Amino acid sequence: MGQCRSANAEDAQEFSDVERAIETLIKNFHQYSVEGGKETLSPSELRDLVTQQLPHLMPSNCGLEEKIGNLGNCNGSKLEFGSFWELIGEAARGLKLDGPVPGS
Amino acid sequence: MGQCRSANAEDAQEFSDVERAIETLIKNFHQYSVEGGKETLSPSELRDLVTQQLPHLMPSNCGLEEKIGNLGNCNGSKLEFGSFWELIGEAARGLKLDGPVPGS
Repeated sequence: MGQCRSANAEDAQEFSDVERAIETLIKNFHQYSVEGGKETLSPSELRDLVTQQLPHLMPSNCGLEEKIGNLGNCNGSKLEFGSFWELIGEAARGLKLDGPVPGS
Repeated sequence: MGQCRSANAEDAQEFSDVERAIETLIKNFHQYSVEGGKETLSPSELRDLVTQQLPHLMPSNCGLEEKIGNLGNCNGSKLEFGSFWELIGEAARGLKLDGPVPGS
């Protein structure tokens, strides 16, 4: 797998909008994953991230609390990046983009 | 499901960086999903999107061509948004963010 190198920040000068968007999501995941290492979100970290960063895409009536609750059922439960990605992917699938996108 | 409304462009004035990032990914998916409806990418559309928008995150030596090839094995194969999201999630998981993020 060593030959399959992904970009790091040194290569980032010419990142596309899409790549910068992915980078923003990764960066935010790591900004909130403070407790117990940078690779996982605790239930409370996930709640903070969603409340502060995803107020429109993941309203609290959309089953988020249930998901966080399930995550918290086991003591020490942690959300890895892959699960976080799935979670926001579910929200993204529901997003309507019928109108003009702000800032575009 | 009707009560679980996601945001649309009218609500977008105060989107967070994370929400705008998700929006960018959705917008790009739809910009490339031209043939056969806005909900799926054909193999050639996926190749265009990755080549033009993900040159750093998904180099061609990272199994992309194999994935596109598998998608193209069945005539009329299409990639839905959920599968697209998984694909870029795989790339994102490999991304290193050890250095400062450009533009931040």
